[in-house]
Amino acid sequence: MVTDPRTLADVSEGALLAEIFPLLQGGPRMPVGPGDDAAVLATGPASVVTTDSMVRGLDWLDEWSTPADVATKLLTQNLADVAAMGATPTAVLVSLMADPQVPVEWVLEFARGLGESARLSGPQGVAVAGGDLSSAPPGVLVLSMTAFGDLDGREPVLRSGARPGDVVTVYGTLGRSGAGLAMLLAGADPGSQPPGIRAECIAHHLRPVAPIPEGAHAADAGATSMIDISDGLLRDGHRIAAASGVRLALTTEGLEPHVRSIAGAVGDDALEQVLTGGEEHSLLATFAGEPPRGWWPIGRVEEGDGVTLDGEPQQPRGWDHFSG
Amino acid sequence: MVTDPRTLADVSEGALLAEIFPLLQGGPRMPVGPGDDAAVLATGPASVVTTDSMVRGLDWLDEWSTPADVATKLLTQNLADVAAMGATPTAVLVSLMADPQVPVEWVLEFARGLGESARLSGPQGVAVAGGDLSSAPPGVLVLSMTAFGDLDGREPVLRSGARPGDVVTVYGTLGRSGAGLAMLLAGADPGSQPPGIRAECIAHHLRPVAPIPEGAHAADAGATSMIDISDGLLRDGHRIAAASGVRLALTTEGLEPHVRSIAGAVGDDALEQVLTGGEEHSLLATFAGEPPRGWWPIGRVEEGDGVTLDGEPQQPRGWDHFSG
Repeated sequence: MVTDPRTLADVSEGALLAEIFPLLQGGPRMPVGPGDDAAVLATGPASVVTTDSMVRGLDWLDEWSTPADVATKLLTQNLADVAAMGATPTAVLVSLMADPQVPVEWVLEFARGLGESARLSGPQGVAVAGGDLSSAPPGVLVLSMTAFGDLDGREPVLRSGARPGDVVTVYGTLGRSGAGLAMLLAGADPGSQPPGIRAECIAHHLRPVAPIPEGAHAADAGATSMIDISDGLLRDGHRIAAASGVRLALTTEGLEPHVRSIAGAVGDDALEQVLTGGEEHSLLATFAGEPPRGWWPIGRVEEGDGVTLDGEPQQPRGWDHFSG
Repeated sequence: MVTDPRTLADVSEGALLAEIFPLLQGGPRMPVGPGDDAAVLATGPASVVTTDSMVRGLDWLDEWSTPADVATKLLTQNLADVAAMGATPTAVLVSLMADPQVPVEWVLEFARGLGESARLSGPQGVAVAGGDLSSAPPGVLVLSMTAFGDLDGREPVLRSGARPGDVVTVYGTLGRSGAGLAMLLAGADPGSQPPGIRAECIAHHLRPVAPIPEGAHAADAGATSMIDISDGLLRDGHRIAAASGVRLALTTEGLEPHVRSIAGAVGDDALEQVLTGGEEHSLLATFAGEPPRGWWPIGRVEEGDGVTLDGEPQQPRGWDHFSG
């Protein structure tokens, strides 16, 4: 493979965009794509919008993450928020603010990874509706994404609808991203893991895949509240508890399969990772009746406040961006 | 005034958001505001989306710009792109990536300025549908915004529709932001300018206000192409010429009132600022018939390519983010 020696300082914004656009997809929901002042999206009567960012050195390290990893993680973070409202993601925009010494190849690999992951995100894929390129001070590489979804006639599923008696459920894994991060911090090499739970945890940390279509399915099945687990089960559970004015009473029995599944990666830390590991992007939801298939029960909604585990109050510990 | 001694490192993300949300407005087009996984917008069948960013030290200097200045400029950049499609802006999201040593007061003043400017941007105002706070490396302060608009049944006005015989027009000022920047670089104090063209140019550079509602008006009046002037009249004019496969033949006669109006600020540089000054955010549009009131004719669309001034070809000089 020939290495591209150019940095961003060697190319004009227009020339770079001309190389990026073919890597990204449009689709039937985007009658006008990037390249004009703005893109045009075909929208329903209610759209869902959210934004999330990643900063090199804080949200990822170049030693561990490829540009495609970063693209997938940024996309998953945003689409999981759309899914957690009960909506189907339709389009994203991305801004890249970069030191001009960043290699052009990094940006092109990022765009290629974004295009591929976006194509795989839902039955029609997710359109990339454009973005922005800006120069930034030395060393800085920052990415910001905004995602849109369509409710397709559904009511949004808020954090505030959980009621005493509801079942608390999770769709997807717990603690894997946190376990992967712990292994990386302990010196694990992301490039040389044999297949198994250790490799799966590291992969989940570096390029998480979230159960995006399940958000809309849960809404159709009558989910009373929903959130994506980005800051840890306890912290995000407290958010549902506070918004709904209820208590989430979790059980070790419900969490046990999750603990067991990552014990091979982090041993005795498994329960702590299940409770507090962030960046998992699984979906936490409550249902008044029988939860649909795949939504694993981990507790019950009760009168009260906060989150308990087998009756013991749990502080909302986990990740906080500024003071954590 | 009591100075708030806190930095971002002293507050949790949740506590900061609780201080920010009351400064921002919702509105009838936002049935669910920020605070859940995503906001919900009431949308028409076709939505317009765009994004633009600002980086401290490159797009603004704290010595010159207040936090409210930065908020207004970021908002104007984004809303002008929405307007240039012929759409009415409805909502924005904003991401702030900041060194934890940034004062909380800076962020609150930014949010207050954003809320005020958004309320004034259109008959129903523009809703702030949320955002994201992330920590960033020492010294870094980066803002990224995404804006939405509604076409209200209109066809989007693209850059590609200019046809030979159309009139080339501008709504708004030319060269003021560039003139203001030149004055600031020459040492002018933004805080002590008496009323007059020099103060107006500096104000236009620090907190530009764009003719946002005119975008939709131009679309209703049959504009054949439109762009907002963010990188200079020549560079943005070349974009319309290239997309439409035509030549924009400008005249010094058409530009003369613009040159005259800033001559008191930048003297002999006035024509160059009118041609190449960026960040103006006035609207450049072409019309097949008589342009509507306020759209000042500066030339004609001809067969050919590029941009000419009194018949002389003009290079697309002006601002480029990486190589400029």
